[in-house]
Amino acid sequence: MALIVQKYGGTSVGTVERIREVAKRVASYRRQGHRLVVVVSAMAGETNRLLDLARHVARLPSEREKDALVASGEQVSAALLALALQDLGVDAVSFLGHQVRIATDSAFGRARIRSIDRHRLLASLERGTIAVVAGFQGVDSDNNITTLGRGGSDTTGVALAAALSADVCEIFTDVDGVYTSDPRIVPGARKLERISYDEMLELASLGAKVLQIRSVEFAKRYQVPVHVRSSFEECEGTIVVAEDKGMEDVMVSGVAHDRDQTKLTLLRVPDRPGLAARVFGPIAAAGIVVDMIIQNASADGTTDLTFTVPRGDYEKALSLLKRDETAHGAHGVASDPNVAKVSIVGLGMRSHAGVAARMFEVLAAEGINIQMISTSEIKISVVVDEKYVELAVRALHDAFIAPRIGEETRSEARSG
Amino acid sequence: MALIVQKYGGTSVGTVERIREVAKRVASYRRQGHRLVVVVSAMAGETNRLLDLARHVARLPSEREKDALVASGEQVSAALLALALQDLGVDAVSFLGHQVRIATDSAFGRARIRSIDRHRLLASLERGTIAVVAGFQGVDSDNNITTLGRGGSDTTGVALAAALSADVCEIFTDVDGVYTSDPRIVPGARKLERISYDEMLELASLGAKVLQIRSVEFAKRYQVPVHVRSSFEECEGTIVVAEDKGMEDVMVSGVAHDRDQTKLTLLRVPDRPGLAARVFGPIAAAGIVVDMIIQNASADGTTDLTFTVPRGDYEKALSLLKRDETAHGAHGVASDPNVAKVSIVGLGMRSHAGVAARMFEVLAAEGINIQMISTSEIKISVVVDEKYVELAVRALHDAFIAPRIGEETRSEARSG
Repeated sequence: MALIVQKYGGTSVGTVERIREVAKRVASYRRQGHRLVVVVSAMAGETNRLLDLARHVARLPSEREKDALVASGEQVSAALLALALQDLGVDAVSFLGHQVRIATDSAFGRARIRSIDRHRLLASLERGTIAVVAGFQGVDSDNNITTLGRGGSDTTGVALAAALSADVCEIFTDVDGVYTSDPRIVPGARKLERISYDEMLELASLGAKVLQIRSVEFAKRYQVPVHVRSSFEECEGTIVVAEDKGMEDVMVSGVAHDRDQTKLTLLRVPDRPGLAARVFGPIAAAGIVVDMIIQNASADGTTDLTFTVPRGDYEKALSLLKRDETAHGAHGVASDPNVAKVSIVGLGMRSHAGVAARMFEVLAAEGINIQMISTSEIKISVVVDEKYVELAVRALHDAFIAPRIGEETRSEARSG
Repeated sequence: MALIVQKYGGTSVGTVERIREVAKRVASYRRQGHRLVVVVSAMAGETNRLLDLARHVARLPSEREKDALVASGEQVSAALLALALQDLGVDAVSFLGHQVRIATDSAFGRARIRSIDRHRLLASLERGTIAVVAGFQGVDSDNNITTLGRGGSDTTGVALAAALSADVCEIFTDVDGVYTSDPRIVPGARKLERISYDEMLELASLGAKVLQIRSVEFAKRYQVPVHVRSSFEECEGTIVVAEDKGMEDVMVSGVAHDRDQTKLTLLRVPDRPGLAARVFGPIAAAGIVVDMIIQNASADGTTDLTFTVPRGDYEKALSLLKRDETAHGAHGVASDPNVAKVSIVGLGMRSHAGVAARMFEVLAAEGINIQMISTSEIKISVVVDEKYVELAVRALHDAFIAPRIGEETRSEARSG
């Protein structure tokens, strides 16, 4: 008899048949006595179809109108799911962002939720009616329609769960949980039963695209348990929760990789104060997001400044560097479009010494040269030649995760 | 330098190319210094696509959810037109029903407008921004999305023109005006320069589907001049306005026909008080809309009761009549599914005697038997065998309209 917020992604509601399947699943929860709020994404492909239309009528579509346009996608799937539930004899009603009301700032295309009016949803729940809420959308203080960015329906789900003090937010998606690594690369990758918000944040930012990062931040701030699970299977998925004691016993809970990396280096540039600001100012102004930055000072007063950017920004960043090379007093520019980032993530790193050293040994044993290193409290990332990605990921998974010890410890921690 | 409300129908915004054409036309008005509010329908086919989806998820889709669903169609075209205008360098912003705000009652699927908040539109006009409003939709007092029924965007346009005291409401559609008759049947049919609200109402109700009837009622009540014209050509269309002196000089301004008619007769039924109520009560309860009703009392105290219903309701009405035949004391039921209604409409009938007699002579001269007659102040309708429709319409057009005298008188009346 819980209060549950469920979120179904675009693939889960991609056709009328699938919408009917989702309705059946929701109805079965209802029959068990649970109270339900259901958040839906647009039908798969719909958001891209609408953005294509926008690009055909305007070379540079304005953000406000793009938001009004694409928000119609979730409006359609919310109404359809409400209809499908009614067809099963279940009381249901659809709500749009402005009807709930989900108030956001005015940053069209990437708005942040400011407040949620629980009143209307609570009234529905009290009547035993299932509220089907259009995800991804809100309204600003002028009643303009805003959207929360790609994957924003996850955030809608978690935010509603927080506002309603729901017992859990279930994210139904096309994968059945969070894995220790990408199963396409590591055949022995295992589904995690539980993972902490912080680990999930690191994995999400590393390209394990199961949950929108902002939804995890939201879940962490309001301590909403998030259950990531499959729309197509009945099995349990992965629960993202606050850290508990047992979790630190696991050194590494996941091995992630990100191929969308390229590397640029400004060679032997005089190491004067303000160097980084002078180099990265023009790059930021060009809208390029820099990921890792490494600076190595030499004894001769010069330094090598190396950083990574996504593939799509490589050419632009390279031309900016070359343009300013002389002004910076550098001795040249080096670059490599074929690199990748491999990372290990785990709460245990905070208390276990030697995790980094072990990681470097594992890679060295495979003959993989490490080009850059970056660490946080619960993550170690290295940049390597792209051709070694699979080898590196498998080797690290074997070394840190494979013997199932981590998984069993984690399970014990849960039951304890 | 007028304040103009323009409405573009589904065909006019049916593709991204056409939306760009509409944007060019709107922009040219803007360059002439006019202030503009533009109302759009959903892209042609979109409303039916959405209703199809609804029918695939629910056998009997609820009206509230259907309205939330189909209202997304106008949301898409409003945003796209605003984007296309911006791309031409014209300031534009889209508004949905709840943003304007267009307040309606809660009769989902056929809501009536109760009030319109001019504030936000006036603020846009003052800034020189073109407001693009999603037609067909409003919100009730609980902020539920409502729709105004098929053709409801016409009503949105006229209602906004009334609320803003606009100089004119231009309805852009796929025909270039209101004709004296259907040009597919009468090659000599001519476009009317002007027509009165009352004549337009009679023609609209007779199946000349140029404007939604309710929009004409609205225009009449608030005295909004409505200009019906083509989206695809530059020529002037037909202006629907309040009656002026010269208009009565024209006896007949249009000849209309309606094939969606079937005829049923209860034969020689005892003519007791309450007969009509007993006959039409069950028919109304079955949701059947009766059009014409004729009752002829005989000297023997019995009467023949004849009426027409749309084709789709013929079988149902017939079975109801046969079921109650004995109860009514009738001597049988006669019926004919192959009839049609032919009508002449004109303000001049009010002052010109003998119009009806002339109409009957014309039909008799062609050997067309008249089965039923019904008259109003400015209209005479007859029911004839369906096979005579084209012949009757052409003969009446030749007799009352063809010599161009009516048209010229109307033109003079306008300039006078």
